[in-house]
Amino acid sequence: MWCDLFVTKLVPIDLRSDTVTKPDRTMRAAMADADVGDDVLDGDPTMRELEERCAQLLGMEAALWTPSGCMGNTIALMAHLQRGDSFLAPHLAHVLGNELGTAAWLAGGMPQALPWVTPGVPAASDITAASASAGPYYALRTRLFCLENTHNAAGGAVVAPDEHAVLVAAAREAGLRVHLDGARLWNASVAMEVPPAALTVGVDTAQVCLSKGLGAPVGSVVAGSAEFVAEARRLRKMLGGGVRQGGVLAAAGLVALDRVDQLAEDHQNARLLADGLREIGWQVDTPQTNIVLATTLDLPTTLSRLTALGVHASAMAGRVRMVTHRDVTRAQIKQVLRRIGKDATRPSGGRSLGSSRASAS
Amino acid sequence: MWCDLFVTKLVPIDLRSDTVTKPDRTMRAAMADADVGDDVLDGDPTMRELEERCAQLLGMEAALWTPSGCMGNTIALMAHLQRGDSFLAPHLAHVLGNELGTAAWLAGGMPQALPWVTPGVPAASDITAASASAGPYYALRTRLFCLENTHNAAGGAVVAPDEHAVLVAAAREAGLRVHLDGARLWNASVAMEVPPAALTVGVDTAQVCLSKGLGAPVGSVVAGSAEFVAEARRLRKMLGGGVRQGGVLAAAGLVALDRVDQLAEDHQNARLLADGLREIGWQVDTPQTNIVLATTLDLPTTLSRLTALGVHASAMAGRVRMVTHRDVTRAQIKQVLRRIGKDATRPSGGRSLGSSRASAS
Amino acid sequence: MWCDLFVTKLVPIDLRSDTVTKPDRTMRAAMADADVGDDVLDGDPTMRELEERCAQLLGMEAALWTPSGCMGNTIALMAHLQRGDSFLAPHLAHVLGNELGTAAWLAGGMPQALPWVTPGVPAASDITAASASAGPYYALRTRLFCLENTHNAAGGAVVAPDEHAVLVAAAREAGLRVHLDGARLWNASVAMEVPPAALTVGVDTAQVCLSKGLGAPVGSVVAGSAEFVAEARRLRKMLGGGVRQGGVLAAAGLVALDRVDQLAEDHQNARLLADGLREIGWQVDTPQTNIVLATTLDLPTTLSRLTALGVHASAMAGRVRMVTHRDVTRAQIKQVLRRIGKDATRPSGGRSLGSSRASAS
Amino acid sequence: MWCDLFVTKLVPIDLRSDTVTKPDRTMRAAMADADVGDDVLDGDPTMRELEERCAQLLGMEAALWTPSGCMGNTIALMAHLQRGDSFLAPHLAHVLGNELGTAAWLAGGMPQALPWVTPGVPAASDITAASASAGPYYALRTRLFCLENTHNAAGGAVVAPDEHAVLVAAAREAGLRVHLDGARLWNASVAMEVPPAALTVGVDTAQVCLSKGLGAPVGSVVAGSAEFVAEARRLRKMLGGGVRQGGVLAAAGLVALDRVDQLAEDHQNARLLADGLREIGWQVDTPQTNIVLATTLDLPTTLSRLTALGVHASAMAGRVRMVTHRDVTRAQIKQVLRRIGKDATRPSGGRSLGSSRASAS
Repeated sequence: MWCDLFVTKLVPIDLRSDTVTKPDRTMRAAMADADVGDDVLDGDPTMRELEERCAQLLGMEAALWTPSGCMGNTIALMAHLQRGDSFLAPHLAHVLGNELGTAAWLAGGMPQALPWVTPGVPAASDITAASASAGPYYALRTRLFCLENTHNAAGGAVVAPDEHAVLVAAAREAGLRVHLDGARLWNASVAMEVPPAALTVGVDTAQVCLSKGLGAPVGSVVAGSAEFVAEARRLRKMLGGGVRQGGVLAAAGLVALDRVDQLAEDHQNARLLADGLREIGWQVDTPQTNIVLATTLDLPTTLSRLTALGVHASAMAGRVRMVTHRDVTRAQIKQVLRRIGKDATRPSGGRSLGSSRASAS
Repeated sequence: MWCDLFVTKLVPIDLRSDTVTKPDRTMRAAMADADVGDDVLDGDPTMRELEERCAQLLGMEAALWTPSGCMGNTIALMAHLQRGDSFLAPHLAHVLGNELGTAAWLAGGMPQALPWVTPGVPAASDITAASASAGPYYALRTRLFCLENTHNAAGGAVVAPDEHAVLVAAAREAGLRVHLDGARLWNASVAMEVPPAALTVGVDTAQVCLSKGLGAPVGSVVAGSAEFVAEARRLRKMLGGGVRQGGVLAAAGLVALDRVDQLAEDHQNARLLADGLREIGWQVDTPQTNIVLATTLDLPTTLSRLTALGVHASAMAGRVRMVTHRDVTRAQIKQVLRRIGKDATRPSGGRSLGSSRASAS
Repeated sequence: MWCDLFVTKLVPIDLRSDTVTKPDRTMRAAMADADVGDDVLDGDPTMRELEERCAQLLGMEAALWTPSGCMGNTIALMAHLQRGDSFLAPHLAHVLGNELGTAAWLAGGMPQALPWVTPGVPAASDITAASASAGPYYALRTRLFCLENTHNAAGGAVVAPDEHAVLVAAAREAGLRVHLDGARLWNASVAMEVPPAALTVGVDTAQVCLSKGLGAPVGSVVAGSAEFVAEARRLRKMLGGGVRQGGVLAAAGLVALDRVDQLAEDHQNARLLADGLREIGWQVDTPQTNIVLATTLDLPTTLSRLTALGVHASAMAGRVRMVTHRDVTRAQIKQVLRRIGKDATRPSGGRSLGSSRASAS
Repeated sequence: MWCDLFVTKLVPIDLRSDTVTKPDRTMRAAMADADVGDDVLDGDPTMRELEERCAQLLGMEAALWTPSGCMGNTIALMAHLQRGDSFLAPHLAHVLGNELGTAAWLAGGMPQALPWVTPGVPAASDITAASASAGPYYALRTRLFCLENTHNAAGGAVVAPDEHAVLVAAAREAGLRVHLDGARLWNASVAMEVPPAALTVGVDTAQVCLSKGLGAPVGSVVAGSAEFVAEARRLRKMLGGGVRQGGVLAAAGLVALDRVDQLAEDHQNARLLADGLREIGWQVDTPQTNIVLATTLDLPTTLSRLTALGVHASAMAGRVRMVTHRDVTRAQIKQVLRRIGKDATRPSGGRSLGSSRASAS
């Protein structure tokens, strides 16, 4: 194409997601040394350690490892919902659009999306209104409010402890259970400088991921009451998520948990990236954590031009999403800005990323 | 309570729904004379006649009787959707909130509610946007657009043939199938003075009810291609909707189809009711067919006060719903207005239906 | 074919099922006169009468009409079973092979078929054995025993009150719930000269059909505790089985219930048919109620030859099934025997029903 | 209890399952060195290598890693079955009783268990008979035959290539698809000295486990056509089995595949164990692979006494199951025999394992 020669020299910088983070030497060493058992039969000691530590961090009674955050969320929703139930979630929540409908066909819940008051945060009054009984015996029963913190499609927006408290109170008042999709709860905790448990107050269940910004290769944890976790173990087995010597993965998770504070660097990098992009004319939200969302006129074109520049981004709700993470350095973020900036000023601006800039003005 | 003595003298007038209509002598005579067979084994002649007549009226290849409109919709959605699919429907569509979530847990579809441009009618551009591929292989696949004409929760609002055409074209362009929930399609047809088939152009499947304004005691019909109807017959059997000598019900349905034109009277009565209510200070939408929606500050109180006046109404999307039908005469509508008007002018206005009026100002 | 001319003169006699029975004048008159209401909204008086009468007859607390026996069984199984549960049923039970798998995919139950000790009747010890915990937390939980009386594929075999008591006791002892598929419970009651309630002792739920031997055009009833029936009403609505002025059908059901004793004639006719067939060399079980099962070497050929003789039979578990019912007279049964007997003695015996006789020896 | 002092000195020998095998140093080193990527986004190189190698070994077009054998089987059954379908599997197959009913409620299949001709092996004629159309349009459709090789509950019995060929031919002839549950296919291959691909001839899909006798900590592989694997990837994501840097686990799987031949030692140990047990009076089947099944009068007592002796066994279909594997040496097997033999000759034989011997005679 227009500059293949030039492009092939660029080392790719992968900002598609923090899920691309790879286990480092320390983590791999921990995996290699892990004490293991058969976790389907009578337990794996490292799994138990990870689960107990997560439960403690989240202020919950117990916790259970799952192979993915999707499975963690699905298990929680299966435990909370039955045929004929409805659940509430913020507009563009991951459980609504990014989990292949399991909330509906597997957990049995008819969703109601709640509009945002601020990015990712619905109004307590909408929870109340949506939970009002529709009347007769054969009506849908609203059973669950599912919060997401940070909210991915809202650009990693955080739900502050006081907002969280108001929403959870409204849900409780309406007789709802509450599930927290905390795939990036660690980021919220670090960004607001509050412990994770401050962000789970009053929820019945919470799911947190180890394989995003924290860098573990595989795994999430779903937490709740001991009774819930017993049922979750059974549901995990149903879904095929019961594994044998999972301690090799749990060991990586334990290392990951030691690194939560390091997420602050990703947040700084995201801010740096957003500021830099705005300086060269992009329309960018100010990131609260590690996700940068930029508006563009022509999303597919912008993404492919970024790829040509060795900058891998992804699409999210019609916008460009760039995610900072532990495998991208500050120097690389500056490099991203240089590549995009240089492209934007090229004479052939009509096809350059200047078109994205134009859209941003 | 405040006027028990007074209230007990009022003959109730039932405006909760047109589903309360009862079969009359003519219809019952037809049922008593119906030629029947075993419709699960090798067919019932009166069923066949009803199904063929409906198919013809709807401009579809074939049709199948079902015990209810809910089952008709569910069968269509089961035929169209699979696990991992998403479907679109207008805000407050019956399949979203009034069918106990079958669209989700039984048909497997994750719903996306589309906002209205005019009551009950979404924007074609929103169909296009919501159908855009979310990208990777594991994303939800938007497969179906489900239209409702008339739209119940929008106050029986009609979708005009030209609006219908634009929406169906957008859905087709986006690769979607189209199902029409035509529980009250007869009303739309009569109100706009177009044949029913003008309102099914381009749809894959349509469901119409015989037991609402048309007055049949039991039954709906779902129509589509011959291939769809063969599959629908199997799905109906699965759901327990295959019946034996159903001809006794089909005979009622055939009589009902002769009465479609009489729905015009219901529409006139609805207009009369709405105008009258507005005159005494209610905030009421102008009805397009046979459903009157009124806004009130305190829905439960208003409903119970109406009941005390012998006027039975129902709640719909936070508003008072009154439905006119063949078992309520023009004189009774005037009686409804008299009862409410008299109540509104009572001195103890603070607790009278004047409170509803206040909310309307 | 071989004798088209001859065959076309024969008036068909339909022994495929007792579901082919048609409502007579009395029943139709009752339907025409039925007092009705909206059974989805606030009840239909004739429905209530039918449901109360059935509950009383079955010795249960409450009952609910359903459009079909399949739906009645499905509702009961949905109420009893959850994901991860297993249920027991006799070999060839209707819920295993004739309800399109709803017990599995809709109610969520993994079935275990129990062998027969006598036709249609399993051993209590097998119930006990199959219910024994498989051990760990993630094992299937056996939750339900589903009995069928009379057992269709066992040739309408009855389960006697003492056998019933032993089986139910074993199930109870094992912690199981019990559902009785009593689609033809009336036949069992009449054949053994015990009241229907003697055959429901200790069961949680029972389903009985009105549209088989009793001759109602449409409908079954599922009975159980008041709590079960409240849930069943919700499940019926989910499946699309909630109907409006169902009283027109319930009225037929009430007439049907007056006719239970007349089933004795069908049983006598079945005995006459079986004896007659045996005399002309068929291998036939002695019927306990109204179902005659005959063994044949070549089932499809036998069925088509019977059809050619104007005798409509059906296939059941690899055998010929002939069902007597109120729309087939004793004279017609004798006519069936004459037609088959004459055919069997035709010189071209190689292709006559003598081939079936040969198989029976 | 009777000999706590004695017992506490015994080092436990774990024969409950070959799933208890732990990754050794070589395997852990491979995990630590694995090249990884994001397998949900655009692939993990080590995963790809494992999947390609498995596909090749199994003679299939493509393969997909799953976190467990249960998920592999479930994905295959979800791909093959729909609502209203039935599937066939040998009596006591793992998919029938040990996967929490997912075949039924998740994949939608109504199972039919086929009796064994020899342990674990059904008759081809029963496949044919069970697949015969039950007649009308609303009947269950038999779609799939699911074979298990080795058959776990049949004591690790193998299905020989010629038996396999006959069964698969019968299934094909009946229009069925074929899935092979090959959780221990490696054992079958080694025991019969045929390549794994000789045992997948004609099947549509096959699942093999890496975490049983081969010693990988986590993971199975499901294989089939490229089209199937594309759909399987989507189904895996639905079930929550899509993982990120799964290469760390795939690396262990690749090491495991190098060790298939070592399963021969487990088979020799199982034979040694069975012979030894028989010598001291137990009733034991001659093992074909690595699973020893022994009959006992009182299973719970026998298991708890074995535990007291430091011999961990499990229950399987009412019998004692002991599984040999790479983490149990020949010396340990001899130790097991010594412990049981000594116990059996103790004077207090009434409560010793001699009671199991008695049951065996």
